[in-house]
Amino acid sequence: MSNEFYKLFFIELKELYNVELQLVEALPNMVSAASHEKLKEAFNTHLEETKNQVKRLEQAFSILKEVPAGNECEAMKGLIHEAQEIQAQNFPSAVSDAALIGIAQKVEHYEIASYGTARTFAKHLELEEIVDLLQESLNEEAHADKALTSIAEGGFFTSGINTLAASNT
Amino acid sequence: MSNEFYKLFFIELKELYNVELQLVEALPNMVSAASHEKLKEAFNTHLEETKNQVKRLEQAFSILKEVPAGNECEAMKGLIHEAQEIQAQNFPSAVSDAALIGIAQKVEHYEIASYGTARTFAKHLELEEIVDLLQESLNEEAHADKALTSIAEGGFFTSGINTLAASNT
Repeated sequence: MSNEFYKLFFIELKELYNVELQLVEALPNMVSAASHEKLKEAFNTHLEETKNQVKRLEQAFSILKEVPAGNECEAMKGLIHEAQEIQAQNFPSAVSDAALIGIAQKVEHYEIASYGTARTFAKHLELEEIVDLLQESLNEEAHADKALTSIAEGGFFTSGINTLAASNT
Repeated sequence: MSNEFYKLFFIELKELYNVELQLVEALPNMVSAASHEKLKEAFNTHLEETKNQVKRLEQAFSILKEVPAGNECEAMKGLIHEAQEIQAQNFPSAVSDAALIGIAQKVEHYEIASYGTARTFAKHLELEEIVDLLQESLNEEAHADKALTSIAEGGFFTSGINTLAASNT
């Protein structure tokens, strides 16, 4: 096994840990900022999932006999700052909800890419237990992204937030 | 049509424009930093695509009779800084390539989410020509992401970069 590749994998893992910790802090603000009941619910559900994802990463650190720690992920910090800037625009509620969904989906996609990379690195390092932990979180992120699209776009019988936002005058 | 929703869409569009301009500047460094011939080629191809994506966004601004301009996207700035930090680690070439692919896929996913949101907003604003322009770039980003996975993971007959990185001692 390459020590240098393990070192890269470990950088990824620490970054993911910091990303999730930043999100645990940011999501309650997104719950408060959301107006639509379904969006509030989705953010609340994802807050609980995110707390579990933190625990899974702590399990991974423990398997590796490493101390959970993370350098601040600047990209995630930028995304959270973007969410704050959007809120400062004082958009009408449906437009603000559409904006929050947009930012949340950027966060989800960022995490999908990060978990995908970390999972694949773990596979090559033959860390099977950690592969499973990362895959579980990856599946949750992909599901959260789809749930947000469905709230934004609505269904056959319900208007989505985007339709409300576009018709808001 | 909601003016406020248009305003939100326009913020997204300006952000995408800034993201692509940052990438046009960053990709040549990623081409130089890449060791594997296929990765160099993929980054070069994506540089050309990115230049076209800039032009498509300029077309969108022109359709809207707006001036192309963008606030600096902090998330993308953070990602590019991350790429520089990884390069400063002086990893062996295959490990460094694996790291570059990981960062590039975060960028792709960030853009997939951004183009997806902007395209959907444009659809609700009935800006059909712009929907087509954004969809075209979205398809390119999704394709670039898949191409990177295939370089990282290899095929039936070729080892991917991750295998090389993991066996590097």
